[in-house]
Amino acid sequence: MKCLFLDVINGGRPPGPPPLWMMRQAGRYLPEYREVRAKAGSFLGLCGNPELAAEVTLQPIRRFGFDAAIIFSDILTIPIALGHTVVFDEGPKLAPLASVAGLERDPEKWRPILAPVYEALRIAREGLDDDKALLGFAGAPWTLAVYLAGGGNDEQKAARLWAYRDPAGFQQLIALLTEAVAQHLIWQLDAGADAVQLFDSWAGGLPPELFARYVVKPGAAIVEKIRRVKPDAKIIGFPRGATMAGLESYAGTTGVDALSLDPSTDMTWAVQKLGVVLQGNLDPLALVAGGEALRTAVAEILSATQGKPFVFNLGHGILPPTPIEHVHELVKLVRGTV
Amino acid sequence: MKCLFLDVINGGRPPGPPPLWMMRQAGRYLPEYREVRAKAGSFLGLCGNPELAAEVTLQPIRRFGFDAAIIFSDILTIPIALGHTVVFDEGPKLAPLASVAGLERDPEKWRPILAPVYEALRIAREGLDDDKALLGFAGAPWTLAVYLAGGGNDEQKAARLWAYRDPAGFQQLIALLTEAVAQHLIWQLDAGADAVQLFDSWAGGLPPELFARYVVKPGAAIVEKIRRVKPDAKIIGFPRGATMAGLESYAGTTGVDALSLDPSTDMTWAVQKLGVVLQGNLDPLALVAGGEALRTAVAEILSATQGKPFVFNLGHGILPPTPIEHVHELVKLVRGTV
Repeated sequence: MKCLFLDVINGGRPPGPPPLWMMRQAGRYLPEYREVRAKAGSFLGLCGNPELAAEVTLQPIRRFGFDAAIIFSDILTIPIALGHTVVFDEGPKLAPLASVAGLERDPEKWRPILAPVYEALRIAREGLDDDKALLGFAGAPWTLAVYLAGGGNDEQKAARLWAYRDPAGFQQLIALLTEAVAQHLIWQLDAGADAVQLFDSWAGGLPPELFARYVVKPGAAIVEKIRRVKPDAKIIGFPRGATMAGLESYAGTTGVDALSLDPSTDMTWAVQKLGVVLQGNLDPLALVAGGEALRTAVAEILSATQGKPFVFNLGHGILPPTPIEHVHELVKLVRGTV
Repeated sequence: MKCLFLDVINGGRPPGPPPLWMMRQAGRYLPEYREVRAKAGSFLGLCGNPELAAEVTLQPIRRFGFDAAIIFSDILTIPIALGHTVVFDEGPKLAPLASVAGLERDPEKWRPILAPVYEALRIAREGLDDDKALLGFAGAPWTLAVYLAGGGNDEQKAARLWAYRDPAGFQQLIALLTEAVAQHLIWQLDAGADAVQLFDSWAGGLPPELFARYVVKPGAAIVEKIRRVKPDAKIIGFPRGATMAGLESYAGTTGVDALSLDPSTDMTWAVQKLGVVLQGNLDPLALVAGGEALRTAVAEILSATQGKPFVFNLGHGILPPTPIEHVHELVKLVRGTV
């Protein structure tokens, strides 16, 4: 069976509607997810249980028929694998890291901690038809550094301050994270992921020089490390909140196959300027709102990307209060079956 | 005496260093501010006391010799004048507004509540030499609507949702806020402000259509309303977090004299593309860090804006943990006396 998602990621322009999936599609807005989540006991318990993680990965495919499943996991699995303590309590809590010295540098020590992700990928791939793609993912080094330095809130203040005060020490952290992210993505591809997405969720608001040094450069290094062992690996980058110049630089220099765009990006501009496969960028709040706002927003994205290699997605993760009927409506709108 | 700040806002290109001030320069990083703040008892008590508000307005001019003073007040004075309850407790707390119906529409009722701002401007203007400019300011309608709808955190979710679900009702709120903001800025100019700045602090991350409708359009309407009664009014816009296309649109269509830029904006690009006087855009975290990071960042901004009509400022408000000696160092770096 042909896989529409992979056709498009390979640069194809199928005549029909674009492939469709949603960031955080396995999540709290789904009753069947909440049920499994309750059974797992905790968020990290769910991430660490391959059977249950695979199950919630497949739930949105069964319900909505999305073209891609993304493995249920968390970007903070890498800090955990590096030996850092992460607690989830209405969002992640990390003890602020002051130096890279305490982190584990040996990939063989990372692997057993990350193994449930690979096992979940194997189980999920078995449960998916060939026409559905399975995605792996990781947080990008800058975003992981933001969490490690003191949290993702409030303009990434602690990480920026560290980068300004101690550029050499901060670069050591970025370099270690770059290694770990590339390795984790390679292992996910080994385990059956058809493509991987690199989430730089805190890339927004950065001065251009910091964006170049800590977002674009590690992004390029990760792509290069992956392609050294997997020349055909399909990689989607998501430098959320990047400026338009930042997006052009990221698309032009990292080597990613596709770029996921946040809702602030004008899709018409992106189609003209970015020169890679595009993914995005419906405002998750338009999906919460539904109705005319949803119809208008979907129509604009479809019109701007008509005939281009494009994957329909949200511009950020689906929000827990999203009504399920709005997601069904979205599927119909994108597939023209409404 | 010539006023360097006003020369530049009028489009002049003085041969020497640019004029300099800092957003939130009257603030918690200053011991003399903390002393007056303690005397006032509360943040709103300080805003409502013209003598004390004028005093803290002048403090940073006395200490650093900045070229402009900005009146000590808060953008939430307008919601308060419209009859909405605002409580400050480690940041503002507002009861979420669901409809414009409960808000006061009569400017004569707003005026007595806003009067302490105008009195503070009169006192501050008397205390300033002619070579120093005095700035008034207001929050822009979108940013005020974000606070009124449910808080400025977390991507302005409640305001965006309201705008999607009930565009007509939300537009009524924006229209009322546009009236009130324009009126407040006119009254501040009457009271002695030499120029005014319009803070759209939550303009970032918006889909292009919402940015056009709720940031650019009200910005243009405010400029037009002010210029109808004060044709020579000097107006600085600050759509923080706008995309590059958003900045071009804002600069090209609102009629502002100057644009204040956040730290993510490439100043070389801005000088080439924006066609208005520029202000900004040092990362407040580079000022907290000091040292080499501060010297490099200041040198880059000065080099990009050399010979252009430019006001040196931060890209966002100064942060409370900023060491005062770093501000002294900044003044020397900008004025070339280091």
